Amino acid sequence: MSVSRTDLANAIRVLTMDAVEKAKSGHPGMPMGMADIAEVLWNDYLVHNPANPQWANRDRFILSNGHGSMLQYALLHLAGYDLSMDDLEQFRQWHSKTPGHPEYRDTPGVETTTGPLGQGLANGVGMALAEEMLAAQFNRPDHHIVDHYTYVFLGDGCLMEGVSHEACSLAGTWGLHKLVCFYDDNGISIDGHVTDWFTDDTPGRFEAYGWNVIRNVDGHDPDAIKKAIHQARSQTVKPTLICCKTVIGHGSPNKAGSHDCHGAPLGAEEICLTRENLGWPDQPFQIPEAVYRAYDARAKGEAAEADWKERFAKYQEIYPDEAAEFERRLRGEVTAGFDGALDKLIADFRTEAPKIATRVASGRSIQALAAAVPEFLGASADLTPSNNTRWKEAIDIGKHRLMGDYIHYGVREFAMSAIMNGVTLHGGFLPFGGTFLIFSDYARNGIRLSALMGIRVIYVMTHDSIGLGEDGPTHQPIEQVNSLRLIPNLLVWRPADAVETAIAWGASIKNTAAPALLALSRQNLPTLPHTDETVANAWRGGYVLKEAANGKPEGILLATGSEVELALNTQAKLAEAGRHVRVVSMPCVEIFAAQDQAYRDAVLPPALTRRLAMEAGSTALWYKYVGLQGDVLGIDRFGASAPAPVLFEKFGFTVDNAVARFQAL
Amino acid sequence: MSVSRTDLANAIRVLTMDAVEKAKSGHPGMPMGMADIAEVLWNDYLVHNPANPQWANRDRFILSNGHGSMLQYALLHLAGYDLSMDDLEQFRQWHSKTPGHPEYRDTPGVETTTGPLGQGLANGVGMALAEEMLAAQFNRPDHHIVDHYTYVFLGDGCLMEGVSHEACSLAGTWGLHKLVCFYDDNGISIDGHVTDWFTDDTPGRFEAYGWNVIRNVDGHDPDAIKKAIHQARSQTVKPTLICCKTVIGHGSPNKAGSHDCHGAPLGAEEICLTRENLGWPDQPFQIPEAVYRAYDARAKGEAAEADWKERFAKYQEIYPDEAAEFERRLRGEVTAGFDGALDKLIADFRTEAPKIATRVASGRSIQALAAAVPEFLGASADLTPSNNTRWKEAIDIGKHRLMGDYIHYGVREFAMSAIMNGVTLHGGFLPFGGTFLIFSDYARNGIRLSALMGIRVIYVMTHDSIGLGEDGPTHQPIEQVNSLRLIPNLLVWRPADAVETAIAWGASIKNTAAPALLALSRQNLPTLPHTDETVANAWRGGYVLKEAANGKPEGILLATGSEVELALNTQAKLAEAGRHVRVVSMPCVEIFAAQDQAYRDAVLPPALTRRLAMEAGSTALWYKYVGLQGDVLGIDRFGASAPAPVLFEKFGFTVDNAVARFQAL
Repeated sequence: MSVSRTDLANAIRVLTMDAVEKAKSGHPGMPMGMADIAEVLWNDYLVHNPANPQWANRDRFILSNGHGSMLQYALLHLAGYDLSMDDLEQFRQWHSKTPGHPEYRDTPGVETTTGPLGQGLANGVGMALAEEMLAAQFNRPDHHIVDHYTYVFLGDGCLMEGVSHEACSLAGTWGLHKLVCFYDDNGISIDGHVTDWFTDDTPGRFEAYGWNVIRNVDGHDPDAIKKAIHQARSQTVKPTLICCKTVIGHGSPNKAGSHDCHGAPLGAEEICLTRENLGWPDQPFQIPEAVYRAYDARAKGEAAEADWKERFAKYQEIYPDEAAEFERRLRGEVTAGFDGALDKLIADFRTEAPKIATRVASGRSIQALAAAVPEFLGASADLTPSNNTRWKEAIDIGKHRLMGDYIHYGVREFAMSAIMNGVTLHGGFLPFGGTFLIFSDYARNGIRLSALMGIRVIYVMTHDSIGLGEDGPTHQPIEQVNSLRLIPNLLVWRPADAVETAIAWGASIKNTAAPALLALSRQNLPTLPHTDETVANAWRGGYVLKEAANGKPEGILLATGSEVELALNTQAKLAEAGRHVRVVSMPCVEIFAAQDQAYRDAVLPPALTRRLAMEAGSTALWYKYVGLQGDVLGIDRFGASAPAPVLFEKFGFTVDNAVARFQAL
Repeated sequence: MSVSRTDLANAIRVLTMDAVEKAKSGHPGMPMGMADIAEVLWNDYLVHNPANPQWANRDRFILSNGHGSMLQYALLHLAGYDLSMDDLEQFRQWHSKTPGHPEYRDTPGVETTTGPLGQGLANGVGMALAEEMLAAQFNRPDHHIVDHYTYVFLGDGCLMEGVSHEACSLAGTWGLHKLVCFYDDNGISIDGHVTDWFTDDTPGRFEAYGWNVIRNVDGHDPDAIKKAIHQARSQTVKPTLICCKTVIGHGSPNKAGSHDCHGAPLGAEEICLTRENLGWPDQPFQIPEAVYRAYDARAKGEAAEADWKERFAKYQEIYPDEAAEFERRLRGEVTAGFDGALDKLIADFRTEAPKIATRVASGRSIQALAAAVPEFLGASADLTPSNNTRWKEAIDIGKHRLMGDYIHYGVREFAMSAIMNGVTLHGGFLPFGGTFLIFSDYARNGIRLSALMGIRVIYVMTHDSIGLGEDGPTHQPIEQVNSLRLIPNLLVWRPADAVETAIAWGASIKNTAAPALLALSRQNLPTLPHTDETVANAWRGGYVLKEAANGKPEGILLATGSEVELALNTQAKLAEAGRHVRVVSMPCVEIFAAQDQAYRDAVLPPALTRRLAMEAGSTALWYKYVGLQGDVLGIDRFGASAPAPVLFEKFGFTVDNAVARFQAL
């Protein structure tokens, strides 16, 4: 067998067919359709080192249409990554390195988790943004230590999703010219030919975003693909969309061009016919040596990284501080000055004891920490003045202007989350982004993917309850805090005062293995009566804020955020009636739940079954802590438009009502 | 004062300033900017009857940029709706008819709840769709009983949101030529001038969707506005976007054109200066009679409705069946044949006792009920073959083809929800739409708005747990069922077999005051051992499915959906060990929670504290039913890619594990 480019692409096709057939599930259509494009990109352009998938200056490759995971696995295997043929044979099996969709951390070379459509594209925008911003901050004339491309494969589904609009609009505004996207224009989605539901003039749409669009590229013609990539890489201001006409399931005599090959195995018979059609005689999971040789990227990759290391060494010589800082930021470590800045912030809040909204405390925390966290990349989805996410010295990025550290995302919550995910995955920044807590709904699956990938992104969500007042039920979170707590691996903080807010920031910055979400009040809250012990214990997610006056509590008031003040006032009022209770503040339920049993029992002694939880939101989750005998003062209906004090009263958040509810236990 | 068009527009401006000032909160900028456009539209074009806001053939008016609610309230007041000056003075107060954002049901003439940006626009697409589909089904040559426009006001924020992309792409494909949208192009959003974050060529973008775009209209020139509306109404195939250049806060000498007037009162001094600038001498909340006379739409509206009634009477004469059916559908009542069809469906399932996935049972339910529910408007977000949402006789709508009852939304979950909301609000259809349960995340705020408005939309969400298998953690719902249960007024069904699935459909169709969401299995589930009693009780949301064999249960196994089978098997295994327990199936927690205490206690006797809940999802909500002494067999981590049986075993959903967990209680 002589090895043509088509043969190389066919290697992807047969591996895909075989793996999907063996797993009895999967998506052969897209890999077979995009194989030629992938082959050209990977063999002629992609700069990467299979031996070191973490190399900082590698090109990023993202499969936004992640259901075609076998395309990526085949490429990684053929290029020489630590992904064996055995791994491919284990496609979609328990604990394999080849799960149904590409999962970050599961497979070397997979840059992000994809599958939820549109988000891989937005991650790519984030990576290209991070690349350009990092280059702007660290490159020096003649010393370009950050200089790589971000390539994204995407399909019709990605382009139909709204998040593609949000992210690509921003990519055009920012002028991310090193972002190159390949649109798999095969005219097919799961419901069939898209002509009845996807009739956009996609090139026109992207030109309206300020993109460079290359139209009508034959996605099965390597020369045409090469020419398009070449043109894309000559861009200096615009991101590029290469529109590739392809045939889904290309090579399958009976199923190509039909949605039948999108999401199901071709079947043994059709696989035989396809092999025949492709002139591919080998057995399942067998690849000729000549094909391996053509794909092998190890030597080239090692050389590329070595070359970069040499360049970096020169940079290091001339700019030792910048080089050290660059390396620190990529490692994700905090600066030497961080702990001191945080301690001072907490101490200052304790001394001053301000009565401020936790969103204001958050803004002051950002301001106080920013100098010690130069990797901060702040942002808001068009609510900067409300979210208090911008510190004074921040430099805004904007249209074709990427030297800075603050992003105005516009009203694009979902893209903000997915772009922040891409930024963290790229490395070099600690992104945080603000919006109203209610609009976490718009970004929810992006937040979920931060958690699923276990990456550090900080969500600054203000206006956390009916306490926002007049804007009414569309803007008042009821179920949001609790529904976010249900997302595994997401740390939801609802601090009760400035001190807890500072701790929430500290803990969130120091945790590089999980995203955090800060639910912050619009309204002012007093600083709590802290001791060294309460401050130390606040880091544990839940703690005894104020013990019963007689030291012998007969019950517990458990609260978060703005309701902790109510709990303290209720405690005082109950004490007047001779009822002595403990007040527990629980700013982060997930962290409290992860403490050892002894600590948890010390805070919530099992014998104390008279428990009243208070939170201005859904009650359901709190029964885990108050049990069948306890009670929850919360809100299980939608909010209303009125001044906040009126709402708190109407919804029963008064000392009198809390006292009555406790006494009824 | 002679009354010019500008004076008429200024009436909106002063009412807005005054109401926002009095409330000490609100958004004056947008109403002041769009006042001229609104005045022309309402006085020269809008066909409506203030005395009957429910008139079926009225034009629909939607304020997608809902923060400018005072614009709408001012118009409704001036046009003669039941909205007094006192009501305007109560802007943003508890239980007023003028809440912070327009709320459906709170205010006569408000067609939909807006505020969460982009969704009003998508609601408008849904209303225009409903209008054209209803016209296609009911109009007859020379008898056009459905024939009205849908007008939408929207701002930069709406256009930045991804849902605008999804909805407007579809509007173009469908060719909704009676949809006319006014883009308030004022160049300002909360973070300031949008030039650094919103640089789309919006006209180009909408042309790419197949829209008619009218560019560069001076939004303060009544003649230019009139000309544009005239041109829009001459369209026969395309929806229209009128791009209006406006100045935010127009009329305010010092704050016009700045984001300072977007979301805060102008202040007493600036209001004085603005009045002076506008030549408006009257006191706050005072409107000259001449202005009232010019706006008064009552006589014109009454005549318009009378004319329509006459036309309808003629239609009724010639097409009595169609007329009766039209009226029934607008009333939202079920057909005479519905109950019979539902009873037969349930009886058939009981007789046949199929072992099928609940998504298949749902498909069969739709098929069996479709003939009795001609108002069905089925749909899927590009997962028709997986969601089983399409019945055999359904007719697909498509490109410029609106005679039908099934919609392929493409991969657009959020627009699907918001468009379905618009369809229901319009009247005449019962929309339901499918996707994978995990992608409820993408549509979450649209689902929330269905619930907030209390309207009938049915979400058919399949692949409801790790039971979907190989697609892995990006596709496996963990927290979704529970987080959806937290949305007030949303009825979440997770049926355990075909019979419960049919009941879920029946209950959801009959409830016109709330949306429902059906979480359905991908995998096969056996039909449960039903009796007449269990079937009757299943309608109550939770019921004793199988009592302990000895009639004296020592504990309860509580389960939903696919885990009910596990509960039954665990019950049997425990019985072998002499441990007798009751099995409770709880297909709809919200409906069960709404039952009287006696029924709830009969199902879950307080004395029986040994309780084990089982559900393949987040555990947290179940403690409300099992208490501190109980246990929950659930999943509080992300899923994994593997065949479903492997996953259920690895995650502990085995009889042995369930038995052990119960015995440990």
